[in-house]
Amino acid sequence: MREIGIGLIGTGFMGRAHALAFHHAVSTFELSVKPRLVALADADAARAERCAADWGFAKACDWESLVNDPAVELVAITTPNRLHYPMTMAALAAGKAVYCEKPLAVTLDEASAMRDAAKRAGVVNRVGYNYLQNPMLKLARELIESGELGEITGYHGEFSEDFMGDPQAPFSWRCETEQAGGALADLGSHILSLSRFLLGDVAALCADLHTAHAERPHQGGRRRVEIDDQAHVLLRFANGAHGTLATSWLRHGRKNHLAFEVYGTRGTLAYDQERLNELRLYGTGGRPGLDGFRTLLSGPHLPDYAAFCPAAGHQLGYNELKTLEVRSLLEALAGNGALTGVDFQEAWEVERLAQAVRDSAREERWVRI
Amino acid sequence: MREIGIGLIGTGFMGRAHALAFHHAVSTFELSVKPRLVALADADAARAERCAADWGFAKACDWESLVNDPAVELVAITTPNRLHYPMTMAALAAGKAVYCEKPLAVTLDEASAMRDAAKRAGVVNRVGYNYLQNPMLKLARELIESGELGEITGYHGEFSEDFMGDPQAPFSWRCETEQAGGALADLGSHILSLSRFLLGDVAALCADLHTAHAERPHQGGRRRVEIDDQAHVLLRFANGAHGTLATSWLRHGRKNHLAFEVYGTRGTLAYDQERLNELRLYGTGGRPGLDGFRTLLSGPHLPDYAAFCPAAGHQLGYNELKTLEVRSLLEALAGNGALTGVDFQEAWEVERLAQAVRDSAREERWVRI
Amino acid sequence: MREIGIGLIGTGFMGRAHALAFHHAVSTFELSVKPRLVALADADAARAERCAADWGFAKACDWESLVNDPAVELVAITTPNRLHYPMTMAALAAGKAVYCEKPLAVTLDEASAMRDAAKRAGVVNRVGYNYLQNPMLKLARELIESGELGEITGYHGEFSEDFMGDPQAPFSWRCETEQAGGALADLGSHILSLSRFLLGDVAALCADLHTAHAERPHQGGRRRVEIDDQAHVLLRFANGAHGTLATSWLRHGRKNHLAFEVYGTRGTLAYDQERLNELRLYGTGGRPGLDGFRTLLSGPHLPDYAAFCPAAGHQLGYNELKTLEVRSLLEALAGNGALTGVDFQEAWEVERLAQAVRDSAREERWVRI
Amino acid sequence: MREIGIGLIGTGFMGRAHALAFHHAVSTFELSVKPRLVALADADAARAERCAADWGFAKACDWESLVNDPAVELVAITTPNRLHYPMTMAALAAGKAVYCEKPLAVTLDEASAMRDAAKRAGVVNRVGYNYLQNPMLKLARELIESGELGEITGYHGEFSEDFMGDPQAPFSWRCETEQAGGALADLGSHILSLSRFLLGDVAALCADLHTAHAERPHQGGRRRVEIDDQAHVLLRFANGAHGTLATSWLRHGRKNHLAFEVYGTRGTLAYDQERLNELRLYGTGGRPGLDGFRTLLSGPHLPDYAAFCPAAGHQLGYNELKTLEVRSLLEALAGNGALTGVDFQEAWEVERLAQAVRDSAREERWVRI
Ligand SMILES: NC(=O)C1=CN([C@@H]2O[C@H](COP(=O)(O)OP(=O)(O)OC[C@H]3O[C@@H](n4cnc5c(N)ncnc54)[C@H](O)[C@@H]3O)[C@@H](O)[C@H]2O)C=CC1
Ligand SMILES: NC(=O)C1=CN([C@@H]2O[C@H](COP(=O)(O)OP(=O)(O)OC[C@H]3O[C@@H](n4cnc5c(N)ncnc54)[C@H](O)[C@@H]3O)[C@@H](O)[C@H]2O)C=CC1
Ligand SMILES: NC(=O)C1=CN([C@@H]2O[C@H](COP(=O)(O)OP(=O)(O)OC[C@H]3O[C@@H](n4cnc5c(N)ncnc54)[C@H](O)[C@@H]3O)[C@@H](O)[C@H]2O)C=CC1
Ligand SMILES: NC(=O)C1=CN([C@@H]2O[C@H](COP(=O)(O)OP(=O)(O)OC[C@H]3O[C@@H](n4cnc5c(N)ncnc54)[C@H](O)[C@@H]3O)[C@@H](O)[C@H]2O)C=CC1
Repeated sequence: MREIGIGLIGTGFMGRAHALAFHHAVSTFELSVKPRLVALADADAARAERCAADWGFAKACDWESLVNDPAVELVAITTPNRLHYPMTMAALAAGKAVYCEKPLAVTLDEASAMRDAAKRAGVVNRVGYNYLQNPMLKLARELIESGELGEITGYHGEFSEDFMGDPQAPFSWRCETEQAGGALADLGSHILSLSRFLLGDVAALCADLHTAHAERPHQGGRRRVEIDDQAHVLLRFANGAHGTLATSWLRHGRKNHLAFEVYGTRGTLAYDQERLNELRLYGTGGRPGLDGFRTLLSGPHLPDYAAFCPAAGHQLGYNELKTLEVRSLLEALAGNGALTGVDFQEAWEVERLAQAVRDSAREERWVRI
Repeated sequence: MREIGIGLIGTGFMGRAHALAFHHAVSTFELSVKPRLVALADADAARAERCAADWGFAKACDWESLVNDPAVELVAITTPNRLHYPMTMAALAAGKAVYCEKPLAVTLDEASAMRDAAKRAGVVNRVGYNYLQNPMLKLARELIESGELGEITGYHGEFSEDFMGDPQAPFSWRCETEQAGGALADLGSHILSLSRFLLGDVAALCADLHTAHAERPHQGGRRRVEIDDQAHVLLRFANGAHGTLATSWLRHGRKNHLAFEVYGTRGTLAYDQERLNELRLYGTGGRPGLDGFRTLLSGPHLPDYAAFCPAAGHQLGYNELKTLEVRSLLEALAGNGALTGVDFQEAWEVERLAQAVRDSAREERWVRI
Repeated sequence: MREIGIGLIGTGFMGRAHALAFHHAVSTFELSVKPRLVALADADAARAERCAADWGFAKACDWESLVNDPAVELVAITTPNRLHYPMTMAALAAGKAVYCEKPLAVTLDEASAMRDAAKRAGVVNRVGYNYLQNPMLKLARELIESGELGEITGYHGEFSEDFMGDPQAPFSWRCETEQAGGALADLGSHILSLSRFLLGDVAALCADLHTAHAERPHQGGRRRVEIDDQAHVLLRFANGAHGTLATSWLRHGRKNHLAFEVYGTRGTLAYDQERLNELRLYGTGGRPGLDGFRTLLSGPHLPDYAAFCPAAGHQLGYNELKTLEVRSLLEALAGNGALTGVDFQEAWEVERLAQAVRDSAREERWVRI
Repeated sequence: MREIGIGLIGTGFMGRAHALAFHHAVSTFELSVKPRLVALADADAARAERCAADWGFAKACDWESLVNDPAVELVAITTPNRLHYPMTMAALAAGKAVYCEKPLAVTLDEASAMRDAAKRAGVVNRVGYNYLQNPMLKLARELIESGELGEITGYHGEFSEDFMGDPQAPFSWRCETEQAGGALADLGSHILSLSRFLLGDVAALCADLHTAHAERPHQGGRRRVEIDDQAHVLLRFANGAHGTLATSWLRHGRKNHLAFEVYGTRGTLAYDQERLNELRLYGTGGRPGLDGFRTLLSGPHLPDYAAFCPAAGHQLGYNELKTLEVRSLLEALAGNGALTGVDFQEAWEVERLAQAVRDSAREERWVRI
């Protein structure tokens, strides 16, 4: 079978998640191409060496060599946000396919440049919006598209966690302005992408960005924080629905609260990533008095669940969403583009919304998209 | 014991709720004054007669006579919104105490006039924000005020129902512009009052009003709808918290979804009126790994629960919140003002916010309060 | 309208609940007869006086006088279990209708004598199984009877609370053997009656009674406990279903956990009294992949809910179940027997099951009913 | 690194789960030994070939050759229950370590022989009770053992699914008597093992087995069913706790409802496998009125979670429990026995309980263990 040489940059949370996903895609699916783990790069060279050995990469190197290594056909980028742009551009310049973590870039200009470069290079390009791979969310989208909920009228979308909820939580790269840091970039990008996945284009928005904690501990002292701890947004979708969106990393008790409610003229859908195998559906038109929110459980009637387990209610985990994303990426590399996945164009749309949120908040006004 | 003559106007949903609450306050509490049910008025005179007999009122009459009846000391107003103003002004002019249903008025001007007249008259004045009487919400406020959640940073408030969710749900007085109709007036007033109850003054807001269904069936034909089906609002509180607020009567599956989430630097509180005997609390600072949202159940440790039942978890119902409101009203009439309750001044604050929402939505801009 | 003279014995938890319910039945329903609160008795005469004044009874007296008072037509008995028998027998001997709290009696012999005496007296007789008045449970029974769940195959019933969960919780009359004390009598009687309400006759059972705490604090010292803290039962119903039943007052966190799951060949029903306005229904035969437990909310489509409130999801409380029970009792006194309610015959069936549980546990064997 | 030759028998649900788990253990953990996938066997030789290729096994063969293949050091058995005995005995006779799916055997005699043979062979032996690998259940056990709940008094354990709930669900090997078929063997073994995991030895039990559907469709006709569709059990634990246990494959809506409630003198724990990343804990002794069931979420404070993901609330899936089981097995093979896992001795204890259930049900009596 044809093999694809993989170069992975970054060995943090997502670096490992990518590595696992490449392995698991192979063990789980009958793929059209097989990934070969060629090279692993990290700022910390010793760590790169150790991880390369542990994770089955043939070698470790610096990222520039990786990007230019002829054996590398796909570059997976899992470094902090600010590095997505230079690494992607270098990879595209070298003619490599790119699988970049979200958010695509720090500024909309960079995002545009990346999208254009990818288009010009004509290579497969994907962004790590893994949550959209959840078969329950694909079901959600199908229900919306099939008209099960009627015409969509209302929406609430949210992505909240609490890892910065303690005012003494330390400054990290996620707090740097030059990383387009902040909850909006870090978490908001996911809920923006999910909102688009479910309801399509946003026509206009009005936003409020809020920095609750203006300083954070940093290297023994304190450092000023300029990015947002939370964002609140009014949304009007092109399909006519109105709603709200919130994202925050201050919300105690929320560990992975990527959640939405979609309201239509005939029914309602609700979801919370903290129970990623469930979907709550309310439909009108049944026997009077016997309506109510129904808790659907994931199961093998959903092909992307069946790929992992033939029994309902046994549950997929977070890593398996990444495996699904990598599968879809590998199939795209094999020329089989039928599977879902977020490409640079779509990730750019997310950045466009994020930029609109920033503009709107700064100027305190509605922004048409 | 001293008796207070009660005149009640309106025999609909709230008319009956008031009548029941006067009875139940007597049977449930050791009151300082006893209500005497003097007169009942309704536009439909026959119905007023029938209800007066059923509900134990001494007589039925038209509302003007009721307001001027010397035996009536308190006028309870449960008519459609547009009538709150004339009926209240007449009652105040006759020197009567007033217990008016929410929202206080249709326009902020009327609300101001009502508040001023009540102040001048020097009479007890209350507005039917009965949800705030829930002992679980008083507990919520205490937890917030005592610093249990730390400094408050984030908020989401909502009141959604679905009784207008079907585009074919008929036009009613709640859809008339001259009633300040719409979800904002009908449901939004409750969540605005609850938001203030929990977090205090709003400093600024930006809102979006949405009419999803521009026509509704009416008297065999169809009638144009100009009021809002839903409202979405960005909020900044004087205490520094930021958040969102939503209200809608289109949201299928939501029957009485008056709900909030309050986020602080040390914990979180969440509530949904559809489970009015529960409160969800998340606190930091416990044993690592043993934190989690805790579902509190109402019980006799809360005095306003104990008044009804000595055993925990047995649950109060909606009508008992109204009974608590009437108790507080009667105690105020007896000169015992210690109990909570929303007076015209506070209800006017709610109208001020509602007006700000309308202004903001019309002009698409932030409004400072 | 015809009036019925009421004599109430006991002023504890249930005494007050009865008093409230008589008042609220009058204010809530159009009754065929009207209760007149004639006399209130309690072992503590001073308390009886005070409560009589507070609760609107014409006088206070001792229970023997009450029972023989010609103005008393119905005797409501809310005293500890051991007194149900002598008080009921005296009331029946005096030709009075009887409304006795559960459990009917301390021994099956007493229960049989009470049932027979009531039958001979030809008077209305009712027992306080108020939970069965919940409109959601009537809906549950209708769903079962209509075949919505198919043939019933499995069952779990439970009534657990935690008020004796602390080993230092003091000895009370509920711990006395001569009261048929214990969790089985106190809580178990409710779940036995509910099990019969839902599924009909039990054909055979096998039980285990357990005294976890053999002593409890009592009057400064400690007192031996001989009754059960919890009971566990295997059940076979006449309809063919098999299942389990548990009752305990040791279960921390359970405040009013009267709960069941009913499984049939076509669906499932689940309920927990701690959310008394909800019922969870699972039905097969819908669109594949769109099945799931549905949370039904109570609402005005259920007449016994509509009697209190015209809007769905607003919720009834515990006291309103008692009001429904008293309404049904008063209607029975007016000769209108159509409404549901547990009479002595049915309450005797519950005692028969409780006795079978005790026999089975003592002899460690299955008991056929 | 040392490698261990793996032979896997069976390519059904569990065959694939094992294969995946061997791969994922390698990618996820730093193992002390590395599995080498030597041979795959299945009754269907063509399928064995195909799966061997897909799953990375060096060859396919029949199970007898596999067991005697010198390159095979560990035999993993995922065939129907009746084959566990002969295959295990052959593997042990050939000196191989054995990883057998649950339940260990069809009869207690076979189970005893297997346990004894394993002991004599002195090889690593494990049984597929993967649910016990859930870090949340390890936390549950720690909480119980540390006394967090006080002295344990009450218990309910259950494993219910619904795949045989339809009376027309076809006969399968799981219905055959010679497989020790039935819900008890199939699902009950899991909840018996989990009960022991949490609370230790059962002292006595009394059980009821129930065949609801005496016939099932089979090969165009119908076939008689003699095994149980559900089992209900009274339990007394050696630690003094009493409780119930239920298992059924008829319970509509239950997809993987392995659940328990553990009650102690100081608190309560509750769990449902359908939300495998959650645990509900109720503790006494906190601030009055602020107690309540707390929903704990899994996270990286649990090392077996951290192995997969560094962020809380992201969730493990079912397959990752199997990966944890295989990791523990491989470590045991490397001589590192510290990790948890169910060996033949413990699995025999489960069979002893299952046998006691069958004896008790047949003879309708309590059985001491
Ligand atoms: N899709 C998803 O669900 C998630 C996506 N992410 C995204 O993944 C990216 C990385 O986030 P994490 O893995 O959480 O961060 P991390 O801080 O755990 O890892 C970042 C890695 O990049 C490496 N790195 C930094 N500078 C480098 C350089 N110049 N050359 C080579 N390596 C360098 C670091 O050494 C580290 O190994 C971010 O863009 C983030 O937004 C993060 C978490 C979840
Ligand atoms: N606090 C709460 O939770 C609730 C408050 N409300 C408020 O209560 C008020 C009434 O609402 P509903 O009872 O639901 O309406 P409804 O339509 O059920 O009842 C209105 C009543 O007013 C009577 N009425 C109308 N014009 C009248 C006149 N000129 N003279 C005398 N009577 C007249 C009608 O005949 C009817 O009996 C509204 O302001 C509403 O916002 C309503 C429901 C819940
Ligand atoms: N249906 C339900 O949901 C409930 C039913 N019950 C039942 O109600 C009955 C009473 O229970 P509680 O009210 O909780 O007990 P309690 O202890 O609160 O009240 C018992 C009352 O009986 C009075 N009493 C005792 N001896 C008396 C005598 N010789 N003459 C007159 N009065 C006497 C006591 O002074 C006290 O007022 C019990 O049979 C219990 O099983 C209790 C709670 C809930
Ligand atoms: N630990 C857990 O959570 C689970 C454990 N199991 C257990 O796993 C075992 C297998 O169950 P499933 O995989 O669900 O069954 P299955 O029916 O899906 O697979 C059984 C496999 O065994 C093969 N087989 C049958 N006879 C054979 C023979 N003579 N030689 C070689 N292969 C043969 C079949 O061809 C098939 O591939 C059972 O003992 C079951 O109790 C099953 C499901 C879950």
